[in-house]
Amino acid sequence: MSELFAGVDVGGTSVKCAIADRNGNVLSEGSIPTNSHDGPHDVLRRIGNYVDSLARGLNVQPKALGMGLPGLVDTRSGITQYLPNLTTHWKNIPAAEILEKQLGYDVRLLNDVRTATYGELVFGHGRGAGALTMMFMAIGTGIGGGIVIEGKLRIGAIGAAGELGHQTIDPTGPLCGCGNHGCLETLASGTALAAEGIRLMLMGLAPALHERVQGNPGLVTAEIMGEVAGQDAAVKQAILHAASYLAIGIANVVVTIHPELVVIGGGVANLGDLLLGRVKEDLQERVGRLFSIDDMKIETSQLGSHAGVLGAIALASRGLPE
Amino acid sequence: MSELFAGVDVGGTSVKCAIADRNGNVLSEGSIPTNSHDGPHDVLRRIGNYVDSLARGLNVQPKALGMGLPGLVDTRSGITQYLPNLTTHWKNIPAAEILEKQLGYDVRLLNDVRTATYGELVFGHGRGAGALTMMFMAIGTGIGGGIVIEGKLRIGAIGAAGELGHQTIDPTGPLCGCGNHGCLETLASGTALAAEGIRLMLMGLAPALHERVQGNPGLVTAEIMGEVAGQDAAVKQAILHAASYLAIGIANVVVTIHPELVVIGGGVANLGDLLLGRVKEDLQERVGRLFSIDDMKIETSQLGSHAGVLGAIALASRGLPE
Repeated sequence: MSELFAGVDVGGTSVKCAIADRNGNVLSEGSIPTNSHDGPHDVLRRIGNYVDSLARGLNVQPKALGMGLPGLVDTRSGITQYLPNLTTHWKNIPAAEILEKQLGYDVRLLNDVRTATYGELVFGHGRGAGALTMMFMAIGTGIGGGIVIEGKLRIGAIGAAGELGHQTIDPTGPLCGCGNHGCLETLASGTALAAEGIRLMLMGLAPALHERVQGNPGLVTAEIMGEVAGQDAAVKQAILHAASYLAIGIANVVVTIHPELVVIGGGVANLGDLLLGRVKEDLQERVGRLFSIDDMKIETSQLGSHAGVLGAIALASRGLPE
Repeated sequence: MSELFAGVDVGGTSVKCAIADRNGNVLSEGSIPTNSHDGPHDVLRRIGNYVDSLARGLNVQPKALGMGLPGLVDTRSGITQYLPNLTTHWKNIPAAEILEKQLGYDVRLLNDVRTATYGELVFGHGRGAGALTMMFMAIGTGIGGGIVIEGKLRIGAIGAAGELGHQTIDPTGPLCGCGNHGCLETLASGTALAAEGIRLMLMGLAPALHERVQGNPGLVTAEIMGEVAGQDAAVKQAILHAASYLAIGIANVVVTIHPELVVIGGGVANLGDLLLGRVKEDLQERVGRLFSIDDMKIETSQLGSHAGVLGAIALASRGLPE
């Protein structure tokens, strides 16, 4: 049997795990709740136990484990820097070392969206594409990203290249979790979109949304907003407004590196043509006289919600780009 | 004698030319007026004649010529696409072929600021730096840029990667020559700065500037604004305001590729610490919680006004990055 690898994609709510070969053929997979209030040591032990149970079920020993984590990670040392969406934030946790001690094989860490980008590069849109230059933008709770230059994932000195959600799009815009104002994430993430949906609902401008969530702000999501956009004109406008900001975020990467391929992932990408149509229209307006939009592919993620865990398999089997 | 190369840097006002070896040692150099109203064929013939005279003066035959041009150039075919600052705009002019026929040796074209970036990479800050990742931003009449990823200049499919002046910084900002609104170039170029200086002067808010140019709007430049900034508080504010926009433009590249080195060139960079101090302060504000500004070098161009012509020598002697 060929060598096998473990892939782990840690999210705020759940942790996806898989055992696969280096070609991304998944032999076993599943997920467990993150329960990050338990603290990093408990969470890591549960991840280790779960991966171990998947491997034992197959009666195999993985050669290495790759793990995507939601935030900044020192990829060289395998120490987490700051994971804003996990309780306690995991500052300076030697997560790779902790898991290696438990499992007895190599563990490699990377930011979750860079990991998903790696997945798209190796197993998704980038498969067999050679020296592809690509940007990946994942629009979910926050906005993450990843950059591939001529076939190589760009990591940067501290693993933070590709933080596309922290582009400044509105110089005096809303406060961001990173301390800046007007980051793309504050204007067009699922959270930003839901917050605007809640505002519209509370101001009486979104009757269909109100009915759909029975007036409960805690139930408003970008996905539900997409469902009622055909009825609530204001909700539709909010989605289009966010799409216009996303187009600026993409446009600014286009002028900088001119990728051949733009991949959009994350839950908000599921809003489909309403969102993506406006993104493409506005991208044309923003950079269309310098760049031909028709020559540039703009696609939704081929791997979808599996991009992260398959990227973790790429990380385990191929390591970090040199 | 070692092989020699010709370098040409075409600007809106003048054309700089040099004959140098592949190490950037200049044996002869000079400049001629551009007079672009003559049209591309006349301008190219004069450039060819001038380069030929420099070479004959040394009694040598260059092996190849590199030429930086102010605008978009198809680097593969050697055909100019659109040079906004030259009269007639040089649309679809096979400039490389025209010069090759006249001179009898290879001619390679590249955007002027990408050429200057190549100069900084090979002969300036990047000299001997190995797999350096660097951004170059030239702030002059417009704002141009260049991106180097791990020692390799990024050109992109149509030579337009690095168009950093056309990042959207203010979504509803001023109209740009490229058709977009709120490009960095509309907010922080020498032209934008001078236009704001003129406005302040005409509104009676810049008495020292008024005196310095005797009330003549046509004489206001970013450089002169720098000279009177100590006396006119409003002029100083205008410069600081532009610097804040420049910081956003740099910040957005930092989050995307996380360069180790940021090089700032062009005439506006000569405003010195007043401008650069604010750029660094604001960059810290914009990305300082994700990236350590202290670990990133921010420098003015080492080659200054010679970056373009030396980059053209790099282009002639080394060719385009593969």
